[in-house]
Amino acid sequence: MGNTRVLCVATVEERVPKFLRGTGSGWITAQYAMLPRSSPSRIPRESRRGHLKGRTQEIQRLIGRSLRQAVDLTAIGERTILIDCDVIEADGGTRTAAVNGGFVALYSALKKLKLAESSVVSMIAAVSLGLIKGKVHLDLDYTEDFAADADINVVMDEKGGIVEIQGTAEEAPFSEEQLGAVIKSARRGIRKIIKAQKKALKIE
Amino acid sequence: MGNTRVLCVATVEERVPKFLRGTGSGWITAQYAMLPRSSPSRIPRESRRGHLKGRTQEIQRLIGRSLRQAVDLTAIGERTILIDCDVIEADGGTRTAAVNGGFVALYSALKKLKLAESSVVSMIAAVSLGLIKGKVHLDLDYTEDFAADADINVVMDEKGGIVEIQGTAEEAPFSEEQLGAVIKSARRGIRKIIKAQKKALKIE
Amino acid sequence: MGNTRVLCVATVEERVPKFLRGTGSGWITAQYAMLPRSSPSRIPRESRRGHLKGRTQEIQRLIGRSLRQAVDLTAIGERTILIDCDVIEADGGTRTAAVNGGFVALYSALKKLKLAESSVVSMIAAVSLGLIKGKVHLDLDYTEDFAADADINVVMDEKGGIVEIQGTAEEAPFSEEQLGAVIKSARRGIRKIIKAQKKALKIE
Amino acid sequence: MGNTRVLCVATVEERVPKFLRGTGSGWITAQYAMLPRSSPSRIPRESRRGHLKGRTQEIQRLIGRSLRQAVDLTAIGERTILIDCDVIEADGGTRTAAVNGGFVALYSALKKLKLAESSVVSMIAAVSLGLIKGKVHLDLDYTEDFAADADINVVMDEKGGIVEIQGTAEEAPFSEEQLGAVIKSARRGIRKIIKAQKKALKIE
Amino acid sequence: MGNTRVLCVATVEERVPKFLRGTGSGWITAQYAMLPRSSPSRIPRESRRGHLKGRTQEIQRLIGRSLRQAVDLTAIGERTILIDCDVIEADGGTRTAAVNGGFVALYSALKKLKLAESSVVSMIAAVSLGLIKGKVHLDLDYTEDFAADADINVVMDEKGGIVEIQGTAEEAPFSEEQLGAVIKSARRGIRKIIKAQKKALKIE
Amino acid sequence: MGNTRVLCVATVEERVPKFLRGTGSGWITAQYAMLPRSSPSRIPRESRRGHLKGRTQEIQRLIGRSLRQAVDLTAIGERTILIDCDVIEADGGTRTAAVNGGFVALYSALKKLKLAESSVVSMIAAVSLGLIKGKVHLDLDYTEDFAADADINVVMDEKGGIVEIQGTAEEAPFSEEQLGAVIKSARRGIRKIIKAQKKALKIE
Repeated sequence: MGNTRVLCVATVEERVPKFLRGTGSGWITAQYAMLPRSSPSRIPRESRRGHLKGRTQEIQRLIGRSLRQAVDLTAIGERTILIDCDVIEADGGTRTAAVNGGFVALYSALKKLKLAESSVVSMIAAVSLGLIKGKVHLDLDYTEDFAADADINVVMDEKGGIVEIQGTAEEAPFSEEQLGAVIKSARRGIRKIIKAQKKALKIE
Repeated sequence: MGNTRVLCVATVEERVPKFLRGTGSGWITAQYAMLPRSSPSRIPRESRRGHLKGRTQEIQRLIGRSLRQAVDLTAIGERTILIDCDVIEADGGTRTAAVNGGFVALYSALKKLKLAESSVVSMIAAVSLGLIKGKVHLDLDYTEDFAADADINVVMDEKGGIVEIQGTAEEAPFSEEQLGAVIKSARRGIRKIIKAQKKALKIE
Repeated sequence: MGNTRVLCVATVEERVPKFLRGTGSGWITAQYAMLPRSSPSRIPRESRRGHLKGRTQEIQRLIGRSLRQAVDLTAIGERTILIDCDVIEADGGTRTAAVNGGFVALYSALKKLKLAESSVVSMIAAVSLGLIKGKVHLDLDYTEDFAADADINVVMDEKGGIVEIQGTAEEAPFSEEQLGAVIKSARRGIRKIIKAQKKALKIE
Repeated sequence: MGNTRVLCVATVEERVPKFLRGTGSGWITAQYAMLPRSSPSRIPRESRRGHLKGRTQEIQRLIGRSLRQAVDLTAIGERTILIDCDVIEADGGTRTAAVNGGFVALYSALKKLKLAESSVVSMIAAVSLGLIKGKVHLDLDYTEDFAADADINVVMDEKGGIVEIQGTAEEAPFSEEQLGAVIKSARRGIRKIIKAQKKALKIE
Repeated sequence: MGNTRVLCVATVEERVPKFLRGTGSGWITAQYAMLPRSSPSRIPRESRRGHLKGRTQEIQRLIGRSLRQAVDLTAIGERTILIDCDVIEADGGTRTAAVNGGFVALYSALKKLKLAESSVVSMIAAVSLGLIKGKVHLDLDYTEDFAADADINVVMDEKGGIVEIQGTAEEAPFSEEQLGAVIKSARRGIRKIIKAQKKALKIE
Repeated sequence: MGNTRVLCVATVEERVPKFLRGTGSGWITAQYAMLPRSSPSRIPRESRRGHLKGRTQEIQRLIGRSLRQAVDLTAIGERTILIDCDVIEADGGTRTAAVNGGFVALYSALKKLKLAESSVVSMIAAVSLGLIKGKVHLDLDYTEDFAADADINVVMDEKGGIVEIQGTAEEAPFSEEQLGAVIKSARRGIRKIIKAQKKALKIE
């Protein structure tokens, strides 16, 4: 995804959050951070601020929700799979890159646990899109991101079902027709990404 | 919006965030909180946790972004309008109720400043929707919210332009067609809300 | 109490603080907060500061201590009754209003638990008073509060026994005689409040 | 005051809190802490908890308010006198000991600034008292404190005017008559303390 | 150690940190703090900052590590000995004074537990040294500390074995030969301190 | 340095800490962090804990002190050079690797500012060493680190002058002779590292 590079690693913990104890169901969650110099202008460390920024929380909630849609949580037993997504280089689309890499890490962990076949419901992947002067652009880089009238992130499953959509008008509201064009373009992009994920995971 | 009740108040501050100083542009931001007993099961105070939850941050970022789309920020001068949204009773759709009430508070403040006509670009309003067994439901209450396969929040301007869309599959991914039906239903709901906002603001 | 409005709600939790576990005794505690716009000049949220202000802590300790004097804690069993007091509108005397409303919430909760008769030792109520130019004023509003030479808060039980007294010279020290006059005036005020509490609780 | 030992030191800072800037008035404030092993059972450090306990805040607010009553703040100019009160050994009455020692530190600092004569309105001193089985006890130690039905702290000026009174029923409400007896006993105690303060300060 | 005064107290807790539970081994740890006015210029309280400074953490880690070398942790059973070191007056070398006083407190606690003989492997003591114009100075005071080209802290056991060495060039790097001279001077200083510790502990 | 990998980046800021403002002198400081999965067992994020661990603070203070010895701070003007050191993979010696990479980043930044020649006093480099069964081991990996009786980190300048030494007995105190052998071995290691730094910086 351009020059964006995100390290994604899965950790399996033999416990679940309180609200799941005794239910037999597992959990998938994510943590996201940017290295201070992943971006042209240095980003202060959140460990220094003493708390996570709203943007960080929003992103890691999105990653977690998306990945949970890919898996049957009751099939993985009472364990938590924690996906760490650390941005080494940011050139637009870090949150969707984190979903894509996060899925690969998640799948690998489930394979090691011999649970991939029984628990993975569908592959999932994500793309960022923008409307620039009314036209749909797929996978915006840092410069395009600044120019966009609207930003849309789409997460889909393998069959093109929408798992998550987040669209924000930055400069001007967009129409239902434009949203439709965005979805179509997203589907094409996601198809390519799933192909790449399968290659990385040596599936098929 | 059902039994949901949110207190929305605007405060005008004669200063702007650092990144706007000297630009001549103003700013609109929002803070959101739930009273501990606004919900059937008590919600612990964030002042006790020492920091805001991810959900709270996500919601107040949504409110701020939406309201900024309604106003020409260069027309309000270097001042900040801060919208406080405090949920007294929560019965589903508190974030969209906060956008709707927040707009009324914002407009009232701008009117007092004699800036409403010159700065308001469009009215905006928001609705929450759900897909329950594949069908679109508008303005879910607490019980319906639990039953929904997917949750979608839509913010639109007066002409039906999409300002913000956030859709999340809770149980199953949804299709492009279902998303289209959601948008149509959202438009009808938002039309009614804008009528109510106008009545409250005595516009026309 | 003037234009002051405080939402008071009781929550029953089936556990007690560590120091009471295994003793058979229950606990009553309170949390107090002001909505940002309950006051003419906006009060920043404590959830943003990351910790409670000294004033807040002082007030919720006063409410908790006062309410515990009204109840035989060994009669309620190992449970905690948590009283949330949220100030919607502040026009002087919010802490004493919180004690008064808090008692009504506490009593209602105990009635639901069928424990009111066995555990309530006495009703309690509170008033704020001020010395303005040497004279006692009962239940000061926001403007009077500013003019007062001394502020005194008194909590009493039904028989006029003093449960709590907090007196502070703001402008000038006060005399033993003035303190005596304050106590007498407090007793009259508290009698009226207890009548109102009984009406609200439909006692007698 | 028994075995209680509190280190009190004044620091003069050539600035005032924001709300006083440009008013010509000064400020007096206090900070209070207990060493972990000042008490028979170790008290965890507040620096580890990450925030001050309610009790600490309550006490340092009391010390600050009391000391400000002793001084004409407009006479000290736009500077802050910060009184540090650190409890080395705690055997009851640490907050009143801090007021007493704090006044000595404050007066010494004002003398160094050649401002004592022009700014000190009155000496002030404080005592803790208790009602044990209905009788007034002056200056309770750790063991008596536990046995008391009610705790009362009184701060007075040199003429016996009440600067601050804080009374709390621990076991049973107390009567107006008992409060009167407490005040009389407090006056006697405070007279002795002021004599000791004068000796320490070499006044007269 | 000059005018430096540090209060050192041991507290025995019948539990160990998580990583030692069930191992049969005990733990020794230390907490260090400076009173705000232990130093000529006031040091703000860490309880106000909300977290410990790096310097504080560095020092208490040094004290803990040093004291653990003095004791066979498996011989004290699953308990923690916590050493509180509070600086009342700081005139250089507070961290080494804390190690020296901390050992005395630790030994006293072990004696009370009848464990001193079986668990203490060796006495330990510490000195601070400086290189001023190339020459070794032992036990620097506040003024010398400022003038030093390099600061070195050494902790040794009774036989002169090095338990901890921390050397920092402040103005200029130092040579191997200078380090050798420092070690020799440290050994002489530590011998005297161990004599004083023995006297305080009435050993021999 | 084995499999240890640390990303080091310099950021130049046109301001200095408060204590240097107006002195004409610059500042060099460092921040250090480990990615959660840089280590075999996951390290929780410090941004989640809300504050930096003692170990982190100790390390970044060491890096900062060491790098400041390499540069004439008055020659760089009133600017701060901040060195970010992020550990991607940890296999022993991350703090010394951070000093070595940090120096390269620092030098590169000074070169860009055309200040390298006028401000760099000497190259510096660091090695970690251990005593295992009495023998000196240079540049310990993760497994050796666990087996070591003592851990020593040494920072030297190009001429072998000692900039920083930190030695800790883990299992047994060490002798002056052993410390001498450590210094000699450190010198040899540091010579190699400085060669590698020069190659990376294309010096000579």
